[in-house]
Amino acid sequence: MRNRPRRYKYEEVADEVIHLIKSGTFRPGDRIPSVREMSRQKQMSVSTVLQAYYLLEAQGFIETRQRSGVYVCTRIPGNMPEPEISSPRLDPAKVSVWQLVKMMLHDAQNPKLVPLGAAYPNMNLLATQKLNRIQASIGRRKKEKSGIYDLPPEGCKALRIQIAKNSVRAGCNLAPGDIVTTAGCTEAINLCLRSVCKRGDTIAIESPISFDVLQCVEASELKALEIPTHPREGISLEALEFAIEHTSVQACVVISNFNNPLGSCIPDAKKKDLVALLARHDLPLIENDIFGEIYFTARRPAVAKSYDQKGLVMLCSSFSKDIAPGYRVGWVAPGRFREQVEWLKYTSTMATATLPQLAIAEFLASGGYHHHMRGIRRVYERNVASMVQAVERYFPKGTRTTRPTGGFVVWVQLPDRADSMQLYKRALDEGIAITPGYIFSSTDRYRNFIRLNAANWSETIEKAMEKLGKCVVELT
Amino acid sequence: MRNRPRRYKYEEVADEVIHLIKSGTFRPGDRIPSVREMSRQKQMSVSTVLQAYYLLEAQGFIETRQRSGVYVCTRIPGNMPEPEISSPRLDPAKVSVWQLVKMMLHDAQNPKLVPLGAAYPNMNLLATQKLNRIQASIGRRKKEKSGIYDLPPEGCKALRIQIAKNSVRAGCNLAPGDIVTTAGCTEAINLCLRSVCKRGDTIAIESPISFDVLQCVEASELKALEIPTHPREGISLEALEFAIEHTSVQACVVISNFNNPLGSCIPDAKKKDLVALLARHDLPLIENDIFGEIYFTARRPAVAKSYDQKGLVMLCSSFSKDIAPGYRVGWVAPGRFREQVEWLKYTSTMATATLPQLAIAEFLASGGYHHHMRGIRRVYERNVASMVQAVERYFPKGTRTTRPTGGFVVWVQLPDRADSMQLYKRALDEGIAITPGYIFSSTDRYRNFIRLNAANWSETIEKAMEKLGKCVVELT
Repeated sequence: MRNRPRRYKYEEVADEVIHLIKSGTFRPGDRIPSVREMSRQKQMSVSTVLQAYYLLEAQGFIETRQRSGVYVCTRIPGNMPEPEISSPRLDPAKVSVWQLVKMMLHDAQNPKLVPLGAAYPNMNLLATQKLNRIQASIGRRKKEKSGIYDLPPEGCKALRIQIAKNSVRAGCNLAPGDIVTTAGCTEAINLCLRSVCKRGDTIAIESPISFDVLQCVEASELKALEIPTHPREGISLEALEFAIEHTSVQACVVISNFNNPLGSCIPDAKKKDLVALLARHDLPLIENDIFGEIYFTARRPAVAKSYDQKGLVMLCSSFSKDIAPGYRVGWVAPGRFREQVEWLKYTSTMATATLPQLAIAEFLASGGYHHHMRGIRRVYERNVASMVQAVERYFPKGTRTTRPTGGFVVWVQLPDRADSMQLYKRALDEGIAITPGYIFSSTDRYRNFIRLNAANWSETIEKAMEKLGKCVVELT
Repeated sequence: MRNRPRRYKYEEVADEVIHLIKSGTFRPGDRIPSVREMSRQKQMSVSTVLQAYYLLEAQGFIETRQRSGVYVCTRIPGNMPEPEISSPRLDPAKVSVWQLVKMMLHDAQNPKLVPLGAAYPNMNLLATQKLNRIQASIGRRKKEKSGIYDLPPEGCKALRIQIAKNSVRAGCNLAPGDIVTTAGCTEAINLCLRSVCKRGDTIAIESPISFDVLQCVEASELKALEIPTHPREGISLEALEFAIEHTSVQACVVISNFNNPLGSCIPDAKKKDLVALLARHDLPLIENDIFGEIYFTARRPAVAKSYDQKGLVMLCSSFSKDIAPGYRVGWVAPGRFREQVEWLKYTSTMATATLPQLAIAEFLASGGYHHHMRGIRRVYERNVASMVQAVERYFPKGTRTTRPTGGFVVWVQLPDRADSMQLYKRALDEGIAITPGYIFSSTDRYRNFIRLNAANWSETIEKAMEKLGKCVVELT
């Protein structure tokens, strides 16, 4: 404003208020500061503000309601024309992986799209209602404790006891003191990477792997070394050993049970070999077990951590896929790196939220969690089977698909000529969100792959799969 | 008094009242007997008492509030000088005080200790009960939404609108789209540091500064360059400019309003100069305003962000000091670094918890927040004043203390020979937790300083302060 000296102060105030209204800070119908309040805040005379408000009222931006205050008009004058006939979308082929991820996250917010994109759990298979109720009850009963920091940063002891108990089912003998709670599994992975690596280090990872892990590696300024991974049995130990012996690797990340997007589950005996291989080289294994409880087999698969004798395995998980994504509660059993993880936790987010931890602890202690899990495993199993069948039914010859024994995503290899980014765009036009393979690697190697979220199943989804199959045919 | 026959009666009355205030009978903010009551009690004429009260008012001991009565001022004139302006060496050094911090966090869990250590807010001055109730209600009403991820990572729009609105009071014109919500202020600071710095970079920080900030700098593999900081007016611009011109500085961190532990508040005009200085060198300013709403002055101090024209100021805050530490909800307005901050947020904790954001948004929108804040500012003001007085009353000559105009911590410089670590140990033996000065710097420069948490006040605390004063005497 400085180079327009003829503007009056009151006009500047008016402009600022218009800016706040247009940017959405003050919405139509909102009360705005009174003349007196505004004059105090801006340290301007009452008369200047009064003049500004007169102007705003004359222009139709605000209105004064007797004995109540000054409000933003509900019919703001606009100078915006109607939309043009159509505005072509950002070309996904030209965006970075992060922009692509953001597009996906936005797709997931759009209720008009058939949600086969982001790996969100089935909303009807969460325990939200029960957990909210437990949380409300704790909020009343323990109002002092629930309000205050949950420090030291290792987190809520009641919850750590339950996690330790539950870990027995995955073959572990964890003590509550072995565990640090986190703001979701993402924080757990992040803390592990940062505690065992310095910037510039190389991390061996399964490929394909969840873009969350890839982005996390990139954000910590680390390099990802992508290791060949079997669609049923997970990371190739031969390839991993070769990589360790011929390059400089500082740690390894796997999603041991039901890799996202592959659905692979490392057989228990192979997990033992994996742990032994890394132990021989004194390398930490960061194990993501976020899907481990959603198994379709008779028995819960073990975790690699159960074979850990040197404290090198850092087991990460959360309650985001099975009961409460919005609660943001995860955890890590960091083995010998506990002190470092705890310190980084403190410096990253200080403490995990108190009430959600108490609520989940109570849900686990009451047996509610196990009851819930028994119910949802069956539904996920059926939905995944339906999705695999739909791929087989509607997709052209030359398509390949995984048949996961847990989790809720299906990984589909399209015929060579199909490009997943083109399919993504075509699918969006048809009102269907999918995830293109590009984002599961730092290279283009999955250009003809897509991930389908099979958490939900319905007639609408069946029809969407039929359409999607036709799109694939068109592209091949 | 008897041997000074020339003293007037009204002066004696005034002296008596001063004695009652200094001895703690009348605490800052207490109502004292009215003129009429006092004249009855003392059997003196109304005019004598009136004269005494005039004198006390002129000396700044009491104030008359219209239609309410006569009160002890919250800012009692003291005879103890302020601490000296800090003079840290201009020498970046690695910080390492984690073990000490953990001891403090453990002290804070011990209900048997008088809690003058960790800077936890007063538990009775939080809005836990109300927020828990709102959260419970939202949990019932919006069970689907409350269960699922709050993505994209920028966070809950309803909350960002409220934060933007509230920022007007601190001189800003933020739009909801300028804000990213976080898991507390710690995550906000952490994201800012990581978005503008690379490993090994040097950050100019106020000294002393909260050990949380120091730890955060260390965890991001950055170096802290401690800048001399005035106990009332904050960071020295001369020293900062010198540092920028003679060393390599990549960013600056300040707690602009009520630095922890100093209590300093950078005057608004100086904030403008600070922003301009950094803008000339194109350097980002990470501004921590976590105590900004707990002001004792007539008007809320502005934030440096309000003077930001180049998008270089990254304003961080949270709801942890005023309403809900355990909710872990904070935010950042990262200016031109928004995209980077959002990406790092996604890779650090993915999303902020859904329900707590919705609850805080509703609390702000309903006006409950402002009502709450109006109530607690007075109490904090009184408690801080009581703490300062207790230091003056019980600590030996040679002690210096701050007189903060906001926040709830007091910074005390002990006589040279006293060592704060020895005092910490002695105090623990007496059942009192304090924070030794060592942890507010990466060097030993605050060895004879302590921070006192003045959030609470009670007879027990008064007695603890008396004991603490004796311990200091023993150590000097």
